Amino acid sequence: METKQNIHELMIDVGKAAKKALTELAVVHTNKKNQALKESAKAIRSAKEFLKEANSTDFKEARQKGLSGSMLDRLLLDESRIEAMAKGLEDIAKLKDPVGTILAEWKRPNGLHIQRVCVPLGVIGIIYESRPNVTADAGGLSLKSGNTAILRGGSESFNSSKVIAECLQQGLRKANLPTTAIQLVPTRDRAAVGEMLKMSDLIDIIVPRGGKSLTQKIQTESRVPVIAHLDGNCHVYIDRAADTQMAVNIVCNSKMRRPGICGATESLVVDKPIAKKTLPNIIDALISAGCEVRGDHKTQMLDSRVRPATEEDWDTEYLDAIISIKQVNGVDEAIEHINTHGSHHTDSIVTKNSSTAQMFLEKIDSAIVLHNASTQFADGGEFGMGAEIGISTGRLHARGPVGVEQLTTFKYVVHGEGQVRS
Amino acid sequence: METKQNIHELMIDVGKAAKKALTELAVVHTNKKNQALKESAKAIRSAKEFLKEANSTDFKEARQKGLSGSMLDRLLLDESRIEAMAKGLEDIAKLKDPVGTILAEWKRPNGLHIQRVCVPLGVIGIIYESRPNVTADAGGLSLKSGNTAILRGGSESFNSSKVIAECLQQGLRKANLPTTAIQLVPTRDRAAVGEMLKMSDLIDIIVPRGGKSLTQKIQTESRVPVIAHLDGNCHVYIDRAADTQMAVNIVCNSKMRRPGICGATESLVVDKPIAKKTLPNIIDALISAGCEVRGDHKTQMLDSRVRPATEEDWDTEYLDAIISIKQVNGVDEAIEHINTHGSHHTDSIVTKNSSTAQMFLEKIDSAIVLHNASTQFADGGEFGMGAEIGISTGRLHARGPVGVEQLTTFKYVVHGEGQVRS
Repeated sequence: METKQNIHELMIDVGKAAKKALTELAVVHTNKKNQALKESAKAIRSAKEFLKEANSTDFKEARQKGLSGSMLDRLLLDESRIEAMAKGLEDIAKLKDPVGTILAEWKRPNGLHIQRVCVPLGVIGIIYESRPNVTADAGGLSLKSGNTAILRGGSESFNSSKVIAECLQQGLRKANLPTTAIQLVPTRDRAAVGEMLKMSDLIDIIVPRGGKSLTQKIQTESRVPVIAHLDGNCHVYIDRAADTQMAVNIVCNSKMRRPGICGATESLVVDKPIAKKTLPNIIDALISAGCEVRGDHKTQMLDSRVRPATEEDWDTEYLDAIISIKQVNGVDEAIEHINTHGSHHTDSIVTKNSSTAQMFLEKIDSAIVLHNASTQFADGGEFGMGAEIGISTGRLHARGPVGVEQLTTFKYVVHGEGQVRS
Repeated sequence: METKQNIHELMIDVGKAAKKALTELAVVHTNKKNQALKESAKAIRSAKEFLKEANSTDFKEARQKGLSGSMLDRLLLDESRIEAMAKGLEDIAKLKDPVGTILAEWKRPNGLHIQRVCVPLGVIGIIYESRPNVTADAGGLSLKSGNTAILRGGSESFNSSKVIAECLQQGLRKANLPTTAIQLVPTRDRAAVGEMLKMSDLIDIIVPRGGKSLTQKIQTESRVPVIAHLDGNCHVYIDRAADTQMAVNIVCNSKMRRPGICGATESLVVDKPIAKKTLPNIIDALISAGCEVRGDHKTQMLDSRVRPATEEDWDTEYLDAIISIKQVNGVDEAIEHINTHGSHHTDSIVTKNSSTAQMFLEKIDSAIVLHNASTQFADGGEFGMGAEIGISTGRLHARGPVGVEQLTTFKYVVHGEGQVRS
């Protein structure tokens, strides 16, 4: 067992190596980064048997420790998941490299030519649960955006993640890039996470990827800026001017396509004048699809299978086949309700009235607002932004899907001919 | 004297009022914000005598407390400074309103139309020293960008800031906007700052504006994300291919135009092959202008008036008429030196060789990098971005000048026709 002091020194070394590698990664040509990504994919495919073996060690230990079924499922790597990781890296290689893009440029009256140029964020610390595939995703996204990564996965996935990280490093080596551009924290000791959160000189940003409790703990404790995904308490609002069939389709898809993802709708808000017409169909469709429906008093009156919703329900992200239904008087009350109880992630309005839609889209204070579309589109891939490291519910820097572009910042490059300031 | 509990409750009330006002401010028409800014300017001009009186109360107390000369100077409001504040607000009214700007838009194969739309950041807490004019600047910039502001100035400027904040609120009132859109913390007690740094539910971002010690303390203690300006240890590098006269002009301007601003050069890095040719002229010009020159051994050899520079000098932001000079072997060593000892604020290269310039501009990891221009251009106004709240040396969200545009974020607005995800 490492001592606290040892872990401190170990992590400082990891951080320094990441900072050093950054000077090369930040300015390297896209081709080299893509080569590393493709070679990493190859290495993962070649290491398949070895990786399955490491994963089976992890899996057995985790089962002995009594991990829950869904956690065990996330930990497991099978043939198709290993192939998906390799394919994911190849897909990242196909994305446009944001680094070096001139985001804006203009000339000043004194002749100075100013450019705002996209550059990597720096050293990114990514802290996640025992999902070994995140090692490949997060490492690949960081690499493509010119950042160096310090990856800290859940301790139950340590052996699997180690093999994956070695594959990524082999890719880096083949492309003649420093292998320290992607480092896995070399200890299972949780003290290492505490160290990362304090390393504001060596880590530029922390990205937690996991459940709300992990994320909240990191946000509270970190001295390094955090880009975080908190909960996705998403809503669909059915306005009085909604098309009934469209409302049924959108609600069922928003809730039941995959109830466990962050863009799944947790709460349905219905305009009173249309409730009697649309809600019976919606409730019936949801219950037929296996969803538990909870509702306010008026909604319970419409169908005896609706269970009572409490105040707590409005604030709850079920991540499960459960939905709460609230009736309101018009779009203003809907906006008030959603802004108060939602989590500023993704909310949708169903209406044929474009001025009501406009009001909703403008006043709902969420990263993603939709008109006549399912909340399950809240996803970097669906947005055409490629792979993402999460959906940010914060307002600073990145909001919504965090893909390669969101893992960058910019600097100002100024070209002069000897100008001095008067 | 307020108790700790009282101050906690007081600040929660301030925060809640700011959050509430935000729902209106965030979506209000530009004309109303501009009207409020112009009316605030009028109110400041009308309150001139009253303001001078309040300032004189502050000034007397501060002098009794033994405040230093430069701090007293910053606290003082005279006719021209009051007029500058009013004029500053009118200038902010003239800036383009960023809110509502469509930053990007695209259509997906399934017909979804995605827009990235500029929206205000939210509630901004601004913590500054006893410079009453910051009350007007910061309040005005927040208002223009649709944010609501909680302003906490140094306690020595309390009476002056209170009058200014009342003028801003009068402007808001005349434009029929909630007066709580700009609030001055209503107590001098320093515990209020501690409360602000903990109010992550009610304040979206903290902007410290002041010296390094204030900023560092806030960065360390804040639970709310911070956009900070740390120090400006800026460099000029004179490459072997520099034009001698241009080098002299740029160095003298970068250091001596105003030695106390953050974009002032603190350290000169000179390529050895050109040192003998350029440095004697530069040293002579600097000393004639009243600058103290410190240098490494080789530089001391060139002029007996050069004092020895220690390792500490390379890391020091003098904010004074002092410069340190270091000789290096070529641009690579210069980049290494500047990235190690600089503060990632603003650095300039003087050279006629465009590929050397390119390397410098690419590899120097600073918010602003210049080629053949003075570092004193590091300023929102000089960049054509209008008034700014500071120059961010952080990498997240805002980097470089923080003006109205940098006080915003974005959301995704998605227009569909009933699309659901397959």
